[in-house]
Amino acid sequence: MQDILTFIPLGGVGSVTRNMYVYQYQDQILLVDCGLGFADETMLGVDLLLPDITYLLKAVQNGKKIVGMLITHGHEDHMGALPFILPQLPDFPIFASPFTAALANGKLKEFGLNRQVQKVSFGDGQEVKIGAFAASFLRVTHSVPDTSHIVIKTPVGAIYHGSDYKFDLTPYDGQKTDFPRIAQAGREGVLALMTDCLGSERKGYTPSEEGLDLRFEEVMAATVGKCIITTYSSNINRLNQAIAAATRKHRKVCFIGRSLINTAETAKRMGLMHIPKAMEVRIDQLKHIKDQELLLLVAGSQGQENSAMTRIANGQHKEVKLTPRDTVIFSADTIPGNEVLVNELLDTIAKQGVKTYYSDITKEFHVSGHGSQQDMMLLLSLVHPKYVVPISGTYKHMVAYRDLARKQGYFDNTIFLGEAGQELLFSQQMARFGQRFPTKNVYVDEISGEEIESYVLRDRQKLSMEGIVVVMAEIDSSTGNLLELPEVVARGFSEGDTEELRRIVIKAVQNKFRVTTGRVTNWVFIRKMIGDICEKTIRDNLKREPLVLPVVIEV
Amino acid sequence: MQDILTFIPLGGVGSVTRNMYVYQYQDQILLVDCGLGFADETMLGVDLLLPDITYLLKAVQNGKKIVGMLITHGHEDHMGALPFILPQLPDFPIFASPFTAALANGKLKEFGLNRQVQKVSFGDGQEVKIGAFAASFLRVTHSVPDTSHIVIKTPVGAIYHGSDYKFDLTPYDGQKTDFPRIAQAGREGVLALMTDCLGSERKGYTPSEEGLDLRFEEVMAATVGKCIITTYSSNINRLNQAIAAATRKHRKVCFIGRSLINTAETAKRMGLMHIPKAMEVRIDQLKHIKDQELLLLVAGSQGQENSAMTRIANGQHKEVKLTPRDTVIFSADTIPGNEVLVNELLDTIAKQGVKTYYSDITKEFHVSGHGSQQDMMLLLSLVHPKYVVPISGTYKHMVAYRDLARKQGYFDNTIFLGEAGQELLFSQQMARFGQRFPTKNVYVDEISGEEIESYVLRDRQKLSMEGIVVVMAEIDSSTGNLLELPEVVARGFSEGDTEELRRIVIKAVQNKFRVTTGRVTNWVFIRKMIGDICEKTIRDNLKREPLVLPVVIEV
Repeated sequence: MQDILTFIPLGGVGSVTRNMYVYQYQDQILLVDCGLGFADETMLGVDLLLPDITYLLKAVQNGKKIVGMLITHGHEDHMGALPFILPQLPDFPIFASPFTAALANGKLKEFGLNRQVQKVSFGDGQEVKIGAFAASFLRVTHSVPDTSHIVIKTPVGAIYHGSDYKFDLTPYDGQKTDFPRIAQAGREGVLALMTDCLGSERKGYTPSEEGLDLRFEEVMAATVGKCIITTYSSNINRLNQAIAAATRKHRKVCFIGRSLINTAETAKRMGLMHIPKAMEVRIDQLKHIKDQELLLLVAGSQGQENSAMTRIANGQHKEVKLTPRDTVIFSADTIPGNEVLVNELLDTIAKQGVKTYYSDITKEFHVSGHGSQQDMMLLLSLVHPKYVVPISGTYKHMVAYRDLARKQGYFDNTIFLGEAGQELLFSQQMARFGQRFPTKNVYVDEISGEEIESYVLRDRQKLSMEGIVVVMAEIDSSTGNLLELPEVVARGFSEGDTEELRRIVIKAVQNKFRVTTGRVTNWVFIRKMIGDICEKTIRDNLKREPLVLPVVIEV
Repeated sequence: MQDILTFIPLGGVGSVTRNMYVYQYQDQILLVDCGLGFADETMLGVDLLLPDITYLLKAVQNGKKIVGMLITHGHEDHMGALPFILPQLPDFPIFASPFTAALANGKLKEFGLNRQVQKVSFGDGQEVKIGAFAASFLRVTHSVPDTSHIVIKTPVGAIYHGSDYKFDLTPYDGQKTDFPRIAQAGREGVLALMTDCLGSERKGYTPSEEGLDLRFEEVMAATVGKCIITTYSSNINRLNQAIAAATRKHRKVCFIGRSLINTAETAKRMGLMHIPKAMEVRIDQLKHIKDQELLLLVAGSQGQENSAMTRIANGQHKEVKLTPRDTVIFSADTIPGNEVLVNELLDTIAKQGVKTYYSDITKEFHVSGHGSQQDMMLLLSLVHPKYVVPISGTYKHMVAYRDLARKQGYFDNTIFLGEAGQELLFSQQMARFGQRFPTKNVYVDEISGEEIESYVLRDRQKLSMEGIVVVMAEIDSSTGNLLELPEVVARGFSEGDTEELRRIVIKAVQNKFRVTTGRVTNWVFIRKMIGDICEKTIRDNLKREPLVLPVVIEV
């Protein structure tokens, strides 16, 4: 029998998120990453998606052994699914770079899991032996510290797992891409490059992060009220740049939003974030400090409905209110699919006369963490693998990447555009697609943390056991007031329960639904709020969890 | 009593679309534009929005007289509401530039309305007298022929109504902006400039359309199969550029999609589109022509669920099938809010191995029809009005425009950021906000053409008289197949009707629901398809039109 290495993406191919990859040699399986996906508006009542691990569960049943897992970096779409996936699988060691491991361990602890991710330092070519595999972590630049590419030596040949990266030659923390070791891996021979392709539509190189702190400083100097910066929680360099600017401009710093606070704590503990004790204030201390002496670092750059930034903008945040003297900087791009939410958030802020900087207006306050076409062709040139497999992109990104690989002299029979569940088989002599395992969307509820194996299960269960409640509320768009008692249509409840349900839902919406900002701009938020109120009251009073469909009628 | 001119936007301020403006002097009302808005995914079961004309209806009741209406250009968001609004108001004359009038008259005829929009040629400063007002149309460049700005002389002063435009110094049709008359209007004195502000976030000037035909030609030369270009139906210059390229490359041209065919017919009749008889083919002739001799001009650049482009991509178009030898060019930007639909469409096309050009990959095949910051500051400098009022933008666009006006020396008390229903009062000496009339969202069904005064009315009526039907269908995401019989939950039907309804809905979905492309990427499309099937069968069999909520369960 020929020596075969099998590669199977369980997610992260054909979609940007849910990154999880299987490398299988004989009866040994090595996993790379374990990331979340994010639901869109067409998925009613669902927040998060998981990779589909049916393949793994069957493989384990059939005597295969998971020898270990490697995590490339600390982003949710690469490690956020750990708390949901690990309990379903047998134990195995997990390895990651130091900051990645710290973030992952914080997450596992938060979910009450007794597992530890082991720290692997980048060192100088050191290898972690995992069964028939040996992995070495190489430092690359991205938008979270300690991001790695991983060279995985297998009996069939070396794989270069080139997850998310860009080539920033002047990173703010001075932690540069390890070009010598990338080149060395290439010299030693790479069978296949698995490569981030998200930026493959963008020409040129992605610019450096250099100088963003100076832009922040200029804005702080020009702002007579609070300065607010919203960015991704894990972008520690960006936060450090904001903190450096605040220090120079004598503004105290307050972290707002749970994800941001947690990540900042981890970064401080590991010496990656430097903020003098006297410089940082807690949210309950804000009332004692003048606005012009404050920088707020706030989570929620994507307009997420429950984020701190959205609550501040909608006037629903207890400690932080916007004034026309404030400035808000969106130091982040809008992730495709979030445009409507972000535009609503921007409009809500603009109506309050707050000066706002965002990516449609200026590119000065954000740089992408993903490489562009030149970065990608440079990686390909350095690694010069025999085969190339774009990952972490939708199909159109993979197609755009293929054009780049062609320009680098690769023939189409060496470029593999896969999809989730599609086997790719490597021997020393060849590579070809194998069989395709069906994959499904696996959903999980963000707030309850409740895992749902699939949407079917959840809806079926809710509908067959818990029923459906459609709540229709008429809202005055100019004031945000409820205009009439909501109408409630329920199914799957006894006659008595239906009456009771109608009574409590109407009462709850009437008593608890409040819009404090006047004119309504964010209808998604309103609908979600009504849904949440109804779900809670039904759960509290009837101990039931029906499928609640809020329908908001704008008047 | 002081002489007062009252300006009230009924739409188009605080939002980009639904443009409709009231100019009122004493008991005379002059209207400008009558545009549609477009629903987003949060508005279940709704396609289109109308300006709220409650103010007008009351004004007419109170003895005010609508003396006329002016239409600035032929885009749906400026004239698409005519068939819905005109029947509700008394008769009055309507004026527009020749091509605008032709498009509007085509629309009125299609809806069976016995009204005519009068053609006004741009001429040289000629005025249309309308009651106390006098209007003259000035030619500007935009993305539809015969776009105009309008100088409206009123007893209080001159208004420059500067609707959508850009300053293209080398337009493909040679029809240049009438700078001399813009400047002359400025010299004669303008009280207020109402100005398009949609591009106010974008630096620099918007580039010219020049040379796009050469780009098209290059792609046609490099394509061995069909060449497909999708763009906005009304962008006649763009279509002409594509036709010119096709002529040079010996490809025959076929228009696909109702809106595109209609607009092209109008343009041909008016001498604005030049296509030799032998060059054009009808869709039923396609089978006789080789792919490499074809250019298809296809409607649906925004991924609209029922558009020709989406049906072609999904393999549901009878006459046109994609092959890997074809090339598709999106000669259009994605309108904010349509990103998810367009990305799904692009991915669906990419999976079929079709070469695709779109704006994330290259800016070579589309130029915006809206001016950027420099265009806007140039217009402001030429017109140099006393007051300035940004229109046709959301609040953040208006705020960005205000920054431009400040740079041109305008003080904040001369820049008015309004909202729909907000009176703005002008005298010769001053301008100030007046009262604010409440406005509501008014919805209309695109397909049935049925007008609904508001969402409330529709939902209430449907729910109280027609009931609600929730249809849950499990779809296999890897094949597009229906996995089990759909579940149907109905409310508002007698027991017998409910049984009948369940039976016919299940049967209809089972028989008529087909996905021919295999793996599902466009879930919105699937949901809509199921909704449409259910609505039709319920209408045909039960003569009822309940609110249908399709819930698709991905497996």
